[in-house]
Amino acid sequence: MELDLQLYSVRTDLAVESKEMAQRLSNMPIPGVNEEVEESDGIKITRLAVSNDAGSQQIGRAIGNYVTLEIPGLRGGDTGLQQKVSEAFAREFESFMSRIGIGKNASVLIVGLGNWNVTPDSLGPLVVENALITRQFYELMPDQVSPGYRNVSAVAPGVLGLTGIESSEIVQGIVERTKPDAIIAIDALASRSLERVNTTIQIADIGIHPGSGIGNKRRGLTREVLGIPCIAIGVPTVCYASTIVGNVLEMMRSHFGGADGRTKEIMGLLDSISEQERLALVKEVLEPLGHDLIVTPKEIDEFIEDIANVVATGLNAALHDAVDPGNVGAYTH
Amino acid sequence: MELDLQLYSVRTDLAVESKEMAQRLSNMPIPGVNEEVEESDGIKITRLAVSNDAGSQQIGRAIGNYVTLEIPGLRGGDTGLQQKVSEAFAREFESFMSRIGIGKNASVLIVGLGNWNVTPDSLGPLVVENALITRQFYELMPDQVSPGYRNVSAVAPGVLGLTGIESSEIVQGIVERTKPDAIIAIDALASRSLERVNTTIQIADIGIHPGSGIGNKRRGLTREVLGIPCIAIGVPTVCYASTIVGNVLEMMRSHFGGADGRTKEIMGLLDSISEQERLALVKEVLEPLGHDLIVTPKEIDEFIEDIANVVATGLNAALHDAVDPGNVGAYTH
Amino acid sequence: MELDLQLYSVRTDLAVESKEMAQRLSNMPIPGVNEEVEESDGIKITRLAVSNDAGSQQIGRAIGNYVTLEIPGLRGGDTGLQQKVSEAFAREFESFMSRIGIGKNASVLIVGLGNWNVTPDSLGPLVVENALITRQFYELMPDQVSPGYRNVSAVAPGVLGLTGIESSEIVQGIVERTKPDAIIAIDALASRSLERVNTTIQIADIGIHPGSGIGNKRRGLTREVLGIPCIAIGVPTVCYASTIVGNVLEMMRSHFGGADGRTKEIMGLLDSISEQERLALVKEVLEPLGHDLIVTPKEIDEFIEDIANVVATGLNAALHDAVDPGNVGAYTH
Amino acid sequence: MELDLQLYSVRTDLAVESKEMAQRLSNMPIPGVNEEVEESDGIKITRLAVSNDAGSQQIGRAIGNYVTLEIPGLRGGDTGLQQKVSEAFAREFESFMSRIGIGKNASVLIVGLGNWNVTPDSLGPLVVENALITRQFYELMPDQVSPGYRNVSAVAPGVLGLTGIESSEIVQGIVERTKPDAIIAIDALASRSLERVNTTIQIADIGIHPGSGIGNKRRGLTREVLGIPCIAIGVPTVCYASTIVGNVLEMMRSHFGGADGRTKEIMGLLDSISEQERLALVKEVLEPLGHDLIVTPKEIDEFIEDIANVVATGLNAALHDAVDPGNVGAYTH
Repeated sequence: MELDLQLYSVRTDLAVESKEMAQRLSNMPIPGVNEEVEESDGIKITRLAVSNDAGSQQIGRAIGNYVTLEIPGLRGGDTGLQQKVSEAFAREFESFMSRIGIGKNASVLIVGLGNWNVTPDSLGPLVVENALITRQFYELMPDQVSPGYRNVSAVAPGVLGLTGIESSEIVQGIVERTKPDAIIAIDALASRSLERVNTTIQIADIGIHPGSGIGNKRRGLTREVLGIPCIAIGVPTVCYASTIVGNVLEMMRSHFGGADGRTKEIMGLLDSISEQERLALVKEVLEPLGHDLIVTPKEIDEFIEDIANVVATGLNAALHDAVDPGNVGAYTH
Repeated sequence: MELDLQLYSVRTDLAVESKEMAQRLSNMPIPGVNEEVEESDGIKITRLAVSNDAGSQQIGRAIGNYVTLEIPGLRGGDTGLQQKVSEAFAREFESFMSRIGIGKNASVLIVGLGNWNVTPDSLGPLVVENALITRQFYELMPDQVSPGYRNVSAVAPGVLGLTGIESSEIVQGIVERTKPDAIIAIDALASRSLERVNTTIQIADIGIHPGSGIGNKRRGLTREVLGIPCIAIGVPTVCYASTIVGNVLEMMRSHFGGADGRTKEIMGLLDSISEQERLALVKEVLEPLGHDLIVTPKEIDEFIEDIANVVATGLNAALHDAVDPGNVGAYTH
Repeated sequence: MELDLQLYSVRTDLAVESKEMAQRLSNMPIPGVNEEVEESDGIKITRLAVSNDAGSQQIGRAIGNYVTLEIPGLRGGDTGLQQKVSEAFAREFESFMSRIGIGKNASVLIVGLGNWNVTPDSLGPLVVENALITRQFYELMPDQVSPGYRNVSAVAPGVLGLTGIESSEIVQGIVERTKPDAIIAIDALASRSLERVNTTIQIADIGIHPGSGIGNKRRGLTREVLGIPCIAIGVPTVCYASTIVGNVLEMMRSHFGGADGRTKEIMGLLDSISEQERLALVKEVLEPLGHDLIVTPKEIDEFIEDIANVVATGLNAALHDAVDPGNVGAYTH
Repeated sequence: MELDLQLYSVRTDLAVESKEMAQRLSNMPIPGVNEEVEESDGIKITRLAVSNDAGSQQIGRAIGNYVTLEIPGLRGGDTGLQQKVSEAFAREFESFMSRIGIGKNASVLIVGLGNWNVTPDSLGPLVVENALITRQFYELMPDQVSPGYRNVSAVAPGVLGLTGIESSEIVQGIVERTKPDAIIAIDALASRSLERVNTTIQIADIGIHPGSGIGNKRRGLTREVLGIPCIAIGVPTVCYASTIVGNVLEMMRSHFGGADGRTKEIMGLLDSISEQERLALVKEVLEPLGHDLIVTPKEIDEFIEDIANVVATGLNAALHDAVDPGNVGAYTH
């Protein structure tokens, strides 16, 4: 029973949200977790470093580096802003790669995780379709590739239900044959807050861990498994319905946490509903359609396409010096 | 303020749900509302007739006839069941047409409402694509059309945001030029309960009323507007997030409505949260992404395609005697 | 028999090709046909005016104005060139409208002809999807629309086989209800030469005539039928296979039309194959799959999408002063 | 020069067409090539065995077994016929597997070659999407898989231009990790005759050879490379334009090969056009758009979808005893 209920507890794949939640319980800085925030032009960049086990445990995230771009205005469909985000993402990604030791000439395999038939899970395959691929030229005529490019290949391995093979197994097979120097894995995520859906891009050097992402990919894509650095790029494309319902219950508590006598009383009683009871309630409402219910704006098809383009454009500029980040769209269809 | 909050109150387009909710408030039969339920083979058919203003007001539905097919197993992807549902739908639809006086030879214009680019709103256009169209043959060589067919045309007028024109205006223009004897309008709906999403088909003779359906279609398609009978076929493809949250709050009340002292006390306090406060809470949680947030299973693309096929196959069999309802798929791609 | 063979004769929807063919038979200027050619930046613009019946008959085109943009490099996928073409198209289209008396504030209905399910015929619907639509704002709050926009609506009426209704009937119905000041109809065309496929845009003030375009739209969209000016924008997306085969036979004649005795002899004999025999031969080869066989590059899906974007971007800039032609993609997805 | 011209010579991927062409040059049975033809219900089945080098050279095909199903009526869209073809294909495929020693319990990896974005090249990926995949259940709970199924996985490796990696390398990587007992590769082909486009299915035990198929897959998928049996399933989805033009020239020769003096004379002269000259002519006409011009019916999108369904349905029935070939569509979307 407890196991099942876990599924209905708050789910987020974003390190900034994990840190927020941990911070709420303690007003002290969390040891082993360093945060740097920068904001301009409507783009908020948070660089989070988790440097030891204590910090890792307290926020529930693996040791590593996390960069998050939050752009609340991104769902507005403003092409000018989209271009600015591509440029900011390209800059952050380039410096992230150099920080973790991936050189200018390192060859890269881009892995687009997820299911192209399931709109909220299709981010990875969409980015792969718009990535600027060059490995074939390095294979056929290595001496003639123009300067300013690097060796980039890409694959969208599908999901277990479509292929019968874990996507990590497919990637391992390809890595063994093609020997890239690094992996960049793109995946659709779930966030805790609706505001972050389709407005947030996370970069992390911890790879993809079993069970993360909104699809079903059980084995991981990590440096331990593959033997090469693994950068994960993630965008939350949904919230889980269970999270939303949990949010409402929590807001009720704070709503009634005011000063006067009656509401204080209610608040006490609501607090007395155990976590267990709360989860059981949520489960009861959402059960009929299973626990994979998502909350999403109706126009999800369009939002996903837009942010996939932003990521692909930025990635192309970050990977290839010859690609001008200002030339939005030049290398995507 | 009140006006805005209306958007966050419980929203359903299904007459069976409106009746359920009305019934909860009163244990007496609702005068002017007659219900007939039949169940076999996993298909539950409810025939609801609203015959006077009193009944109409009590359940909040226009006077008219409503037939609902509920098939809880339909999301399982079982082709055998899908075929049975097509057949049952064809039978019900045929008898519905004859009951409201649409003859065997009446020409019909099928109108697929909704937006083909927005997955949960694409049911109407998908059904239109799979409808068996014959009007062109009646126009070109009326004497040579085989017996067993009727004159059927179809159109997917798009949505206001795509065309700049109300879909009802487009349909009126086409009706005036092509003079069909009746309209069949297909639309994606919202339901109150998750169980009914993509498992329910509603047939009604009241046409499409302003504001119903999950897209934005303001003016109606009704006999009053168009001068000919208008049958609406609807399938709930989403729940609104606001409805789900409302459901949880309601369940909390019943959860604590048990016997002992403490929970009775909580229940009393929860009851004391006014409807106004409850809606304000829901609004606060869901505000960031606007009020059109939907709850849906991740695999919505596939579910919509399946039920659009079921409806189109049944409709083709109901409209054309020569089409065998058993020959599933013969006239759909 | 003769009738059928007509289908296999050379088919082009481009006025510049009709004129080329007519010119080949006569070295004299064609009376009543005036041509102006301008070329820069890889874009060749031809402005053709057919001013009287004599000219019209000689080149087989209706009296009217034809502007053609030919951009041989357009299939290269170069985004910079695409933007330049959008801008050139916007300029030409704007001055075309003003030349034929469509004012800055005239309301416009864009009609995207063709079938969205048939790739080579999907240009019209693709342009409509990317057009900047404003009519709904003029209807709801006419006083509050920003300056620099005009009233634009759009519709993709489908094809007879999908709807059972001639697209011209659908358009007439909509025109009668919404009273636009002018129609802009977009259609996929067939050209005679492969070079022009997906590299050419034609603007004409003669509307859409029965039987033109690559789909099946029999009745016309013309000023005579609709009572308002009708501009047609066309892009050749295919050649007919019969045209290609005809081209080869013709090239053989010129190939053997050299100096020495033997080839002169062959040439004479080849000339002696009557037009009738030639067409019969072509028909015999192409019969098995019907006469609608097309020749196209394998990558047609991508080419069509690219040129639809070019046309939509240019059209948005030409119709709305507030839209900057340099801001490519801002108003298209 | 000769090299380039090769591209414009007659291209076919069908063994039955290679044999037809070889047979035309000689009325004698071709040694080392055995043919068995069976026809019923509108389905013609040809079983061709090439058993030695002499035969292989004469018809230009590798030593191996080829089964071809030709169904001229298949483009008619008749669902009844489609089901019959699925059943016939299932029977042939099952007996083909057993004949070449692939047992009932052999695990299979289905490889869908080609590019899902290029309609005529999308057959392989479409079949993969509709294949019944079970490997994940064998991995997770091998003892609980129902009898009547076998271990099937599937992958659509994309094309070199999309991934930067040869599809054969991707497949090799996956084979090394997942160790299937056999490969079934699906690919879109080119045929010589238009009649066979989208009406023919070829099964062969020779795998996929470099350069075959309509896309660009240079390295092979063969038993030599992969160490396991490789069955190829191919469907011609296009003719090359160069082939069509060649067909016309050839027909002209036979057209003028009649009895009387003048045509005999022409025929002689046409014969005197060398193969080289003929190819040069074809090249000249088709050059502008490159040599990958295809001839196809306009409705190619629909035809490809239909035949992919036929192949997937038949394949599912052939691979899994528990799948009833009569239950068309049960396991495809």
